[in-house]
Amino acid sequence: MAHALRLAERGIYTTQPNPRVGCVIVADGLVVGEGAHLRAGEPHAEVYALRMAGERARGAELFVTLEPCSHHGRTPPCADALIAAGVRKVTVAMVDPNPQVSGRGIARLRAAGIEVETGLLEGEAGKLNRGFVSRMTRGRPWLTLKLAASLDGRTAMASGESQWITGAAARADVHRLRAAAGSVMTGGATVLADDPQLTARDTGFAVRQADRIVLDSSARVPLTARVWQGDARRYWLVGRPPAVRPEGVELIEVACGDDGSIRLLDALAALAARAVNEVLLECGPRLAGAFLAAGLVDEVVAYLAPTLLGHEARPFAYLPGLEQLSQRIELTFVDTRQIGSDLRITLRPGRREAA
Amino acid sequence: MAHALRLAERGIYTTQPNPRVGCVIVADGLVVGEGAHLRAGEPHAEVYALRMAGERARGAELFVTLEPCSHHGRTPPCADALIAAGVRKVTVAMVDPNPQVSGRGIARLRAAGIEVETGLLEGEAGKLNRGFVSRMTRGRPWLTLKLAASLDGRTAMASGESQWITGAAARADVHRLRAAAGSVMTGGATVLADDPQLTARDTGFAVRQADRIVLDSSARVPLTARVWQGDARRYWLVGRPPAVRPEGVELIEVACGDDGSIRLLDALAALAARAVNEVLLECGPRLAGAFLAAGLVDEVVAYLAPTLLGHEARPFAYLPGLEQLSQRIELTFVDTRQIGSDLRITLRPGRREAA
Repeated sequence: MAHALRLAERGIYTTQPNPRVGCVIVADGLVVGEGAHLRAGEPHAEVYALRMAGERARGAELFVTLEPCSHHGRTPPCADALIAAGVRKVTVAMVDPNPQVSGRGIARLRAAGIEVETGLLEGEAGKLNRGFVSRMTRGRPWLTLKLAASLDGRTAMASGESQWITGAAARADVHRLRAAAGSVMTGGATVLADDPQLTARDTGFAVRQADRIVLDSSARVPLTARVWQGDARRYWLVGRPPAVRPEGVELIEVACGDDGSIRLLDALAALAARAVNEVLLECGPRLAGAFLAAGLVDEVVAYLAPTLLGHEARPFAYLPGLEQLSQRIELTFVDTRQIGSDLRITLRPGRREAA
Repeated sequence: MAHALRLAERGIYTTQPNPRVGCVIVADGLVVGEGAHLRAGEPHAEVYALRMAGERARGAELFVTLEPCSHHGRTPPCADALIAAGVRKVTVAMVDPNPQVSGRGIARLRAAGIEVETGLLEGEAGKLNRGFVSRMTRGRPWLTLKLAASLDGRTAMASGESQWITGAAARADVHRLRAAAGSVMTGGATVLADDPQLTARDTGFAVRQADRIVLDSSARVPLTARVWQGDARRYWLVGRPPAVRPEGVELIEVACGDDGSIRLLDALAALAARAVNEVLLECGPRLAGAFLAAGLVDEVVAYLAPTLLGHEARPFAYLPGLEQLSQRIELTFVDTRQIGSDLRITLRPGRREAA
C-alpha cells in the first residue's frame, strides 16, 4: 500500500478535480501490475494496473489507495473490471468519501465473492486527497492560506512597498504549492494593488496550470488584469455583476453580508459546486483575517523572511475585535523547514499539545 | 580536541566571567588526563588534566581549547605547569583573545622547547566563548536579544495583557538561556509593567544564578522590584542617580543621548568593565528596537507561539523611521527547532545567502 501511495503521488499536480489514486497488484509475492490516475478523463489507476498484470491478475491481491468506483463516469466502473479480471482479494486504504457512492464499490466486490479489507494507511491516503475529501464531505474546498512576511509579521511597508520580501527559492516553492492545490484565490484589492499573475511558473516541471479565483464583491477588477490571462479556469466571484466580463472568465454571483463583503462560506460552496478541491489563498491582510476569523482556513503556510520591517509596516492579517488574549486564534505547528534564506512554517488551526 | 571541547562545555553555566576551557592529555594513543575549567577561582582545565595524568604527562601530547595562561591570576600560570610536567607537544584551538596577553602563553611554551600547534577547531572554541571573546576584543558583552511573540509578531495585546503567549517548555528554555548567558538585562519600563524575577529557575539543574541588569535612564524602578531580590550580582544603569538604591545593587551612571535615553554602547562598555561576558536582553519593544537599530544585537532568539494576536496587538520591536524596504534590518536564520508547542528561531544580524 505504501508503494500504491507513492504511485498516487504522481498525480499531485495533475488529477484535479479527480482524486489521486495508486494501485498495485501482487501475485505470488511479486508486483505484477501497478498504475496511477494522472488526469481526469484518463483511465483510473486500477485499469492501468490490470492492463499491466494481464492474466496474472487472476487470483492475485490488489492494493488500491481509494475505493474502486462502482458507477459509470467518464470511464466504466473499476469494480466491474476487478471482478472480470478475477482478483482474489482487494485491500483499500480509504473508502470513497463521496457520500453518494461511498461503500458501493466495496459492496459490489464482496457480492462477487472477492475478499475486501479497508483502512490500511487510511490516514496517508486521506492526506493525499484532502481537497477531494473536503469537497465531498464538507461541500467546500480545502483552503490553505499562504502568507509571506518578515520575522516581525509584516507583509509590506506602510507605503505598500512589498516586492521581494522573501527570496527566489521561497517564491518558486509557492509556485509548486499553487500547482499542487490546483487553484489560487485572491481578493480584488490585491489584484488592483499588485496585478499578480498567480500562475505556477517556477516549478521546474510541467504542471496543470492552476485555476484562478478572484473574490471581488464590488467587481472592480479591470478586464486587463493579468490574472484573467492564460487558459486556466478563471472565476470572478462578485457581489453584483459588472457591466462586462473578460472573455473565458466565469462570473459567479455570491450573496454579500451586511458589511458589503462576499459571504465566504457561500463563495467556497460555489467553488466546490464547480469541482474545486483545494484552494491556495494568497491575498491581503483584510481577506486573510476574514477567512481566519471565520474559521475557514484549513492550513496556514507562512514564509518568514529573516528581516525586520518595523512596527509601522503592514500586518499579516487584520483581525478586528481581537482585544483579549483569550480571543486569540490558536494554531499548531506541523512542519518547519528552511527554503533558501527563508523559513516555511506550516500550521493547522486549533491548539494541540506537542508530542 | 573535539573531546576537549565537550569537556569545556561542562562549564557553560558556571565559568562566567572566565572562559570555558577543556583539556585532554594523550600518551601512546590513550587519554591519560582530562579536565575542564568550571568556576572562576578554581583550577584551570590544564591543572586538572595534569593532576590526572601524573607522571604519564611527561612526553605526552596536550590538547587545550584556549591558549594556556602565562600570568599569575587567581591561579598560577598554566604554561609553567605544562613545562614543569614535561609535555612534548601542545595543540591549542584558539589563542587567548585578550590583546594584553594573547600569544604569550604559546611563546613561553615554545621558548621551553615544546612544540605548539594552533587553530584546530578554532571556530568551535570561539563559539563556546563568544562572550569572553567579545569582551576582550570589542570591549562589550555578546548580546542576545530574546523575543517571545505570536506568529504575527505580537508580544502583547493592546491592553498590555501578555502572560503565557509561549508555553511552559519555551519558558524553561529561556531559563537555560539566562543561565548560559550569565546575565539578563531588561529595561525599567518592563520592570514597572511586569515586575519580572529574571532568574534561571526551570533549568532542571543547578546553575550559577545570572546577573541582573536594569537599564533605567530616569531611575524609576522601585526598591521593592523582584528583580533586585536574590544574591546574584545586580546592576542598575541609570542616567541620573536615584535618591536611594536597593541594598546589594551596584549603581552605574551612564551618559544619556539627546532623547534622554541611556547611550547603549556606553552601557555595554560599563558592563564589560565589570567582566560581564554575555547578556541576554529580555525587554519591551522600544528597548529591543533601539538595540537593533544601533546594530548592537549579536543574536536574536525568537520564540514564536502558534497563535495570532491580530493587528491591534503590540509589536515585536519599535523601529522608528523605517519607511522603505531598503532600510529593513536584515538577519540570517541559523537554527530553528520546536520547543514544546512553540518554535525557537535563532538569527544573526546581516544577510547571508543560504548554502
